[in-house]
Amino acid sequence: MTTVLKLGGSVITEKDRTETVDVANLGAAVEALAGREDVVVIHGGGSFGHHHAAEHGVSTTEGTHDDEAVRAIHGAMKRLNAAVVEGLSGEGTPALPVHPLSVASRDADGNLHAPTAHVETMLAEGFVPVLHGDVIVHAEKGATILSGDELVVALASALDADRVGVCSAVPGVYDESGEVISHIDSFEAVADALGGSDETDVTGGMAGKVRQLLELDAEAYVFGIDGLDAFLDGRQPGTRID
Amino acid sequence: MTTVLKLGGSVITEKDRTETVDVANLGAAVEALAGREDVVVIHGGGSFGHHHAAEHGVSTTEGTHDDEAVRAIHGAMKRLNAAVVEGLSGEGTPALPVHPLSVASRDADGNLHAPTAHVETMLAEGFVPVLHGDVIVHAEKGATILSGDELVVALASALDADRVGVCSAVPGVYDESGEVISHIDSFEAVADALGGSDETDVTGGMAGKVRQLLELDAEAYVFGIDGLDAFLDGRQPGTRID
Repeated sequence: MTTVLKLGGSVITEKDRTETVDVANLGAAVEALAGREDVVVIHGGGSFGHHHAAEHGVSTTEGTHDDEAVRAIHGAMKRLNAAVVEGLSGEGTPALPVHPLSVASRDADGNLHAPTAHVETMLAEGFVPVLHGDVIVHAEKGATILSGDELVVALASALDADRVGVCSAVPGVYDESGEVISHIDSFEAVADALGGSDETDVTGGMAGKVRQLLELDAEAYVFGIDGLDAFLDGRQPGTRID
Repeated sequence: MTTVLKLGGSVITEKDRTETVDVANLGAAVEALAGREDVVVIHGGGSFGHHHAAEHGVSTTEGTHDDEAVRAIHGAMKRLNAAVVEGLSGEGTPALPVHPLSVASRDADGNLHAPTAHVETMLAEGFVPVLHGDVIVHAEKGATILSGDELVVALASALDADRVGVCSAVPGVYDESGEVISHIDSFEAVADALGGSDETDVTGGMAGKVRQLLELDAEAYVFGIDGLDAFLDGRQPGTRID
């Protein structure tokens, strides 16, 4: 029973303050994860990655051959990853860092190639892999952004995950009147509500998240930090997407 | 024309002083590499990795499930890698870090699985990948050491490298009278001389290096830091092994 959990960059960092961890939220997240097994953690960039990516004009489709830009984005994401790994290990979770630049790439058509044999072995050996949104090499474009959301979908598929959790800055997917939708089983049913969503960042907003989560075999949930314990306990917080 | 270059841990660090870079030798190495293309750099552990590995009783065959030990060894190797990447980029070389824990693993039979599509894309896009000896997950054993030497052989094969250079603390492979052997084409011819070598470290000495380099299709060379420029210029410093 494998779980893939995304900790949103806007949850664990203070998005308006450069490279600042949201200590309260990260603390709540690592406490909720203490003692859990068979979970892969993926975190977004928040105020660490997005700032550098925007500064250098790098996105999921716009690439760069500037090695200094690649190191700047990657270095910032590694600093955030170190904070997450340290927080987890401080609560006794056997966390190990996995940096996408070291393993993933895109071909000239933009298809992601992200080998996962080592992640499977980490899980089998009792470790908790901690991945993150990153910059990765991209054939003919130099390097582009791999968002945490894209990584969630790729890993959930590759690992044949049973449950996927996306811990966000909001308690679930909102409908047009600002209420959390409890269940989404098709994009059409919620397209109008999501089209108007403000919850966007440089690597894709809620509409994109929902669209991708619907494509997974796994049961997926979008919830806020207050729903994390419930999700990890096997309950159904926020919005269920399947 | 792809070159795989190993910078020995005993070359770029002061082996007797914990986590200390040999600034003169690292400086000479990054200067020799300035402006070079189509080269993959791999460095050993020296006084960064070996100390932690020995302390926790982890070797290429003895594993650990202690996540703190894994993070300690990996963290030390990342600090050395950061120094190498920084040194290279300071000389204008478009270096990008690649951490084996993030990509490689061993199966229960000890076979190494080390995907390289991203390394090939880095080379094709003009970047210089910088890998290192590391701790990696190992099925049924937790995690074991991947030596820089093993990585050289794995990458040279996977990338179908034309030339392999092993920059060591010695100017080449010595014969019984302490002279550098100019050419080795079979292990038997030098077995006696190598059996008596003192040049050993926790991840294998000169005999193992020679044995593995003989198995490669590529032309391989073992030389000291003074031979690095010659090697990168296509000349034949130290000991040629093929």
